[in-house]
Order: sequence, then C-alpha cells, then structure tokens
Amino acid sequence: MSAELNFVGRIQTPYLTKQACPGQARAENGTSQIIVDEEYASALDNLKVGDHVQVLYWFDQADRHVLKTVPRWSKTNEERGIFSTRSPNRPNPIALSTVEIFAIDGNIMTVTAMDCIDGTPLLDIKPYLNQLKA
Amino acid sequence: MSAELNFVGRIQTPYLTKQACPGQARAENGTSQIIVDEEYASALDNLKVGDHVQVLYWFDQADRHVLKTVPRWSKTNEERGIFSTRSPNRPNPIALSTVEIFAIDGNIMTVTAMDCIDGTPLLDIKPYLNQLKA
Repeated sequence: MSAELNFVGRIQTPYLTKQACPGQARAENGTSQIIVDEEYASALDNLKVGDHVQVLYWFDQADRHVLKTVPRWSKTNEERGIFSTRSPNRPNPIALSTVEIFAIDGNIMTVTAMDCIDGTPLLDIKPYLNQLKA
Repeated sequence: MSAELNFVGRIQTPYLTKQACPGQARAENGTSQIIVDEEYASALDNLKVGDHVQVLYWFDQADRHVLKTVPRWSKTNEERGIFSTRSPNRPNPIALSTVEIFAIDGNIMTVTAMDCIDGTPLLDIKPYLNQLKA
C-alpha cells in the first residue's frame, strides 16, 4: 500500500553533498531559503516573520531499505532501530525540522539554517505546536 | 516531480469518520495503538516506555487541492493559507503528532490518543527533539 507525494518547492542551502550536511537544523549555521513553487505560493498566506514552523522535506538520496543503524553521534557503535533515530536512511525518508521564519518575500522564506543538500524537495509547512506543553 | 510513500503500519483509534476525529493528539482522550507491519518491527528497537516520539502518518481522506481554508477553530471565518494551518487538507497530507509511549509489545505501541480515523496509514516514527530549546 502506498501513496504519492508531490513536491511543492525546494530548500536552498550551502551543502552540496550528504557528507557536508550538519546533523540537524541549527541557528548557529545561519539561514536557509525555502522556495515554494509559484502555484503553491498562496498557501504561505498568514505566515509571518517570527513564527516557528515545522518543515517537512524529502531526503531523496536516502537508503530506504535500512531498518537498523549506528547513529553518527553514537559512542558505542551499537546498532539501533531506525525509528529510534533521526537518520535520513529510513523506509519513508521524510525529514522534519522546526525553524524560525526570518523573512518572507513572495514565494521565498528565509528561515533557520537547515540540514539538507541544496535543492532538497519541499513537502509541507505547518505552524509549530508544542504538544508537550499542553 | 514526485516520490512514493510505502505504508509501514497503521494507527488504531476509536474514530470511524473524519467528523468524529478530535483536532489534535491529546492526552485527555486516552490512548491509541500504533501497529507496525511485521516486516518493519525491528525498526522499533531501542524505543522505550516514557519516550516521546514524533509520529508521521497519512490523512488518506484529505482533499489535496486546497491552498486556503477557514480553520475549524477560527472565530473570524477568515481564509488562511494552508501552510499557516494544520488542516488535514493540504497538497501532501502528512500528519504529525508528538506522543508519549506508554507500552511496547512486539510490533504494537500504545501511545497518547491520536487524532485520526481508525486504520490510518503509518509513515514514520522519530524520537522527539526539542529544537527550540537548543
């Protein structure tokens, strides 16, 4: 059973290879641009500078057959179940970062520096909701 | 440009229609079960009771052509860009909830009550990371 994703834009970063990508989105790495395809630009309406959003994107270079892995940060070399890690290699390589919006210019948003290769496909943007605080 | 998702399990809830579903995953609604397909069960290794995880799932009854909507919680009836809402109706209807794990029994996890129809397809599970705290 399956479903089809339609890419709605792309993410602009300085990283050209998987090896160059940092482990997570991090404010100290500067900023990235989210470029939404023109046909989806109106879906950005009502987002504003200072908002935090959850960005979903697609690790198109991931290995989707991996179920166990040794994380990059591991000190023990222990293999872990992939659902207990945030490795890009997983059955559905949907990436997820929470970022702050620094600027919005038409279909381009400047946000906290992301962790993916330049040109990575965009899937979705959602307003951040802290479900643990509720 | 597109990509294919492979469903890796399903979510068991008491909700049989879209109308019956609550707006978000909420602890006060009890618990739900995440049933991971047997072939992916080893990907759950190293998750444990008390962990918080981000669950990604697929709103297979969503309208994917909507770019603007009036949210259910709106008091003004103002239409908003879909990326500024968490509406299930969106170009890629990937749902995202942060839940707590209450029990793990083989390929079945009991978690905070989720907000989707019984049988909703599971896409991914990731350990929760508070990127706003860093």
